[in-house]
Amino acid sequence: MTYINNHIMKKQPKTSRRSFLKGASLITAGFVASPLLSSAQTNLPKKEDNSIYLIGPQEGYSPHIGALLSTMTMMRKWVINTVNDLTVEQLDFQIDEKSNAVGAMLLHLAATERYYQLNTFDNLDWGTWDNAIKEKWDVASGLGEKGREEIKGHDVSYYLAKLEEVRKVTEKEFAKRDDDWLMKAEPFFEGKQTNNYCKWFHVCEHESNHRGQMKFILKRLPS
Amino acid sequence: MTYINNHIMKKQPKTSRRSFLKGASLITAGFVASPLLSSAQTNLPKKEDNSIYLIGPQEGYSPHIGALLSTMTMMRKWVINTVNDLTVEQLDFQIDEKSNAVGAMLLHLAATERYYQLNTFDNLDWGTWDNAIKEKWDVASGLGEKGREEIKGHDVSYYLAKLEEVRKVTEKEFAKRDDDWLMKAEPFFEGKQTNNYCKWFHVCEHESNHRGQMKFILKRLPS
Repeated sequence: MTYINNHIMKKQPKTSRRSFLKGASLITAGFVASPLLSSAQTNLPKKEDNSIYLIGPQEGYSPHIGALLSTMTMMRKWVINTVNDLTVEQLDFQIDEKSNAVGAMLLHLAATERYYQLNTFDNLDWGTWDNAIKEKWDVASGLGEKGREEIKGHDVSYYLAKLEEVRKVTEKEFAKRDDDWLMKAEPFFEGKQTNNYCKWFHVCEHESNHRGQMKFILKRLPS
Repeated sequence: MTYINNHIMKKQPKTSRRSFLKGASLITAGFVASPLLSSAQTNLPKKEDNSIYLIGPQEGYSPHIGALLSTMTMMRKWVINTVNDLTVEQLDFQIDEKSNAVGAMLLHLAATERYYQLNTFDNLDWGTWDNAIKEKWDVASGLGEKGREEIKGHDVSYYLAKLEEVRKVTEKEFAKRDDDWLMKAEPFFEGKQTNNYCKWFHVCEHESNHRGQMKFILKRLPS
């Protein structure tokens, strides 16, 4: 498979490459004006009526939170595109005794995002949340043997609904916060200073990490 | 394996979680002041003397380019941590007849970054670069059978040097550009408007995608 196929890139006529993002200067203006929401930001692209491939500040969010969210939205769309047409059997397929099924990985992404919400929005140290929350999400968070035993038999809409339910909370909480919050740090990864931007970038790249594993497994489904 | 193990997270005392990124307000100030380099930005964290887990604007780069580069730097460190101790045999290991070796995937990451440099810095439509460049990078870009045949026998320092050589160019070119450039778009992914921020976010998440596959393979090395 070529890089181009891997990356769903369509070649374009030479003339197209000088085209600009409509309103790019407005975005920059909005983003220069203030790290908080500003009237200029009403000119920013609305996520829903723009290409998911226009990464950057978004209306209704502080500049770096908007840019971060736009990467999460794009990444999520690529995850959905990877799994959207899978059957229950394909979602449950175990490539070997160590493997995590694609369905279990999808629930793992939702669990991960839920736990980062509790850590960064509710200021809870990792793993200090209520037992009711742990009972709901710990198996998907941990995966492994318990995940193989317990996460199965669901169709794709079940997993996508969980992901969407959790993401809606992230979007709502992001809209309440500003870039100063995004830069707040505590010792976290490797015990080093880690800011909220980093934790949420990890939530995003973690979807890509598992999407890579999903694609590896899906290329090897029994025919 | 637990989520915490997967994510090299160290639990911290409750008191730590209210600590802030030193200079966060300066970052925001620098970033409010201008999307271009400004004197305020001399107060921004220097990548080399800060935790890689402080994502955000970086000294010497426009605000969103600095934030993007900080995610690429963190992601690259995690890739390096994943492969740093591997032997030539481990780097060449093929888990099945369809698989890409970890070493080949490392060269693929360098090739991908090189091609996005040509597309976004040199304004070349995808694949229109010189044959000399294609001869150097096309096999690593395409992977597959040719990659399995031709990319082998190198130790990890060979792959890390290639990655570093390409990354140095990206850092140098990023430093010359501003956030207006980052927002420039053309039809690209799926033929939709895609800006430079998106193309470079993809270069970053693509490292995570392959790191996920590397970890899958490395857990299954013959003992």
